[in-house]
Amino acid sequence: MSQPLPGYRVRLGHETPLRLDCGVELSDFTVAYQTYGRLNAARSNAILICHALTGDQYVAEPHPVTGKEGWWHMMVGPGKVLDTDRYFVVCPNILGGCMGTIGPKEINPATGKPWGLTFPVISIADMVRAQAMLMDHLGIDNLFAVTGGSIGGMQVLEWAALYPARVFAAVPIATAAHHTAQNIAFHEVGRQAIMADPDWHGGDYQAHGARPHRGLAVARMAAHITYLSEKALQEKFGRKLQNRAAVSWGFDADFQVESYLRHQGSTFVDRFDANSYLYITRAADYFDLAERYGGVLAHAFRGTATRFCLMSFTSDWLYPTEENRKIMHALNAVAANVSFAEIVSDNGHDSFLLDEPEFHRVFEGFLDGAAEHRGLPRKSGQ
Amino acid sequence: MSQPLPGYRVRLGHETPLRLDCGVELSDFTVAYQTYGRLNAARSNAILICHALTGDQYVAEPHPVTGKEGWWHMMVGPGKVLDTDRYFVVCPNILGGCMGTIGPKEINPATGKPWGLTFPVISIADMVRAQAMLMDHLGIDNLFAVTGGSIGGMQVLEWAALYPARVFAAVPIATAAHHTAQNIAFHEVGRQAIMADPDWHGGDYQAHGARPHRGLAVARMAAHITYLSEKALQEKFGRKLQNRAAVSWGFDADFQVESYLRHQGSTFVDRFDANSYLYITRAADYFDLAERYGGVLAHAFRGTATRFCLMSFTSDWLYPTEENRKIMHALNAVAANVSFAEIVSDNGHDSFLLDEPEFHRVFEGFLDGAAEHRGLPRKSGQ
Repeated sequence: MSQPLPGYRVRLGHETPLRLDCGVELSDFTVAYQTYGRLNAARSNAILICHALTGDQYVAEPHPVTGKEGWWHMMVGPGKVLDTDRYFVVCPNILGGCMGTIGPKEINPATGKPWGLTFPVISIADMVRAQAMLMDHLGIDNLFAVTGGSIGGMQVLEWAALYPARVFAAVPIATAAHHTAQNIAFHEVGRQAIMADPDWHGGDYQAHGARPHRGLAVARMAAHITYLSEKALQEKFGRKLQNRAAVSWGFDADFQVESYLRHQGSTFVDRFDANSYLYITRAADYFDLAERYGGVLAHAFRGTATRFCLMSFTSDWLYPTEENRKIMHALNAVAANVSFAEIVSDNGHDSFLLDEPEFHRVFEGFLDGAAEHRGLPRKSGQ
Repeated sequence: MSQPLPGYRVRLGHETPLRLDCGVELSDFTVAYQTYGRLNAARSNAILICHALTGDQYVAEPHPVTGKEGWWHMMVGPGKVLDTDRYFVVCPNILGGCMGTIGPKEINPATGKPWGLTFPVISIADMVRAQAMLMDHLGIDNLFAVTGGSIGGMQVLEWAALYPARVFAAVPIATAAHHTAQNIAFHEVGRQAIMADPDWHGGDYQAHGARPHRGLAVARMAAHITYLSEKALQEKFGRKLQNRAAVSWGFDADFQVESYLRHQGSTFVDRFDANSYLYITRAADYFDLAERYGGVLAHAFRGTATRFCLMSFTSDWLYPTEENRKIMHALNAVAANVSFAEIVSDNGHDSFLLDEPEFHRVFEGFLDGAAEHRGLPRKSGQ
């Protein structure tokens, strides 16, 4: 097979449809993806990145809407942790997303109208099944590694559970094997904020030429608080005022943290689709990997030959170390090859997106070791 | 002076106006309050309860709107911790509230229209000044105790700082001497949710015959998560489904925690005013007791003769023990009479509203000791 082209959209499902967990079949759907580096002749050096809730496939290049650097540009590139001189890195937009892969904002070919809420509700496993079909299409039978943080980490766990023979190494980061009540609660607040916006129009806003910007911004603001630690917020903003010497005795953004949050909300709506937000948060809430295995998480990994590296961050209160440790216990129970690192950081859940040297070091060390076992060439210069 | 009548509304400010921190003067305003028990002849057995953000004066009797038991009925009554056989308990609706005290939903006599956003922005200290005027009116020079949880606790701290000679004992519960960046952030999400609702009409919804129910419900839902601990949510709800055997593959409230949160939101809007929510959250965000004292919290309490009992709850992540401990350190620095108890509880911030035997025991023991020092009679039967 030939070298996969970068920046591609592929139509999948026409030979074998994607059967979703909800029962619906998708027999013609698009997956958009980006790639970095080159697939080797043995097709053995591919790393799949699974992006998080509001991420996308623009990992290491400017975002086409915002113009900002890719969300993992610090990690992916020549000589970086995910070294594109050595590895072929693929990142598809997830099922239900809004950057080219099929999702509620795309046109339903059966009606010629946007799917909106007629789009089937999807699961994390469905996202992974679609990614597996993309890997089939790219001729990649066995991934050197699958990695991702947050909801991306859930996809990594599903990959290891659904396709153990296709995953040489798995690096789930700052994630959990199920959503807790508090996780669901925060997502529900976001969904209710979107649905409360009259511009949402029961999900049919595209037909009305509207977009529920205000509701989506509120959802983003609420979620954003959960991505940061209390300490990081306090150190970064504390009670500092925004461009003023005293409070305004009004409802302006007097405090820097208010201004920051409003900015997070207002910029988010330019690049994200409200219905996608509903669908992806729902998939995360439905995620409970053990459920399919009689409630025993270890059974999801029985007999696995995949090498795991789990990482959590001390100040992450969204998917805290405890949740990551449950995954480690399950892997230990089936004698899997697993290493676990709790990274000391004050940056909360978002640590996996930031310049965290220890995180990068552990990640790179694990990949180097796995690459050696895989028989991939060493880093140039080593 | 005579025995104060219960269930009263008084008009205050006509002799000496209330000068607010923002500079505005209120020269004719109503304060609504409830009382329980009888003021003794020496007028020395009064306990002032300062209510929290969404509380009100209906402490120990059915709420006139919801019909539910008073929010502190467990604490206040004959033989209870705040024993109405011994103490005269007063609870006024706070300034900016919506249960009879002046606030944005009341009529501005100057215009004949609801204040709405023309109501002056208030501070925690303003609430306390209005309460002090009520105490003047009731002929209570010196309060046996001032108590309250959460934003009520902030008022207790302000009482001790502004009127040390009028406060014999102070019991601030589950509170903080300032709002942190994360506290402000959660409040700002709530405000943005309200203001994003088109039915808010720039605060002028009464004139439009509308009420921003949807925005206020979202605000309540987001805030409610912060009142509960992650553990309590998990133990109470976990991933349990609501009246169904399997998920709906839709956006209904599949999970009990979703149903619970939606209920919290939808019932709240029946009894609370959206603009009051804006004003009171703003007062809390502006609260930074040390600021007035050169940034040194201890200076707020210099020379105090008040006896303090501070209580926090281990699982409270909204106003965690650490914030309460800062208050204790400040009081220690001025050699105040202070005791501090961190109560072990999984119930999060809301612990102060719940049946927490250790909390009740500590509170009662402190009041008994203070009453003895005050020369009040012992509990009947003792």
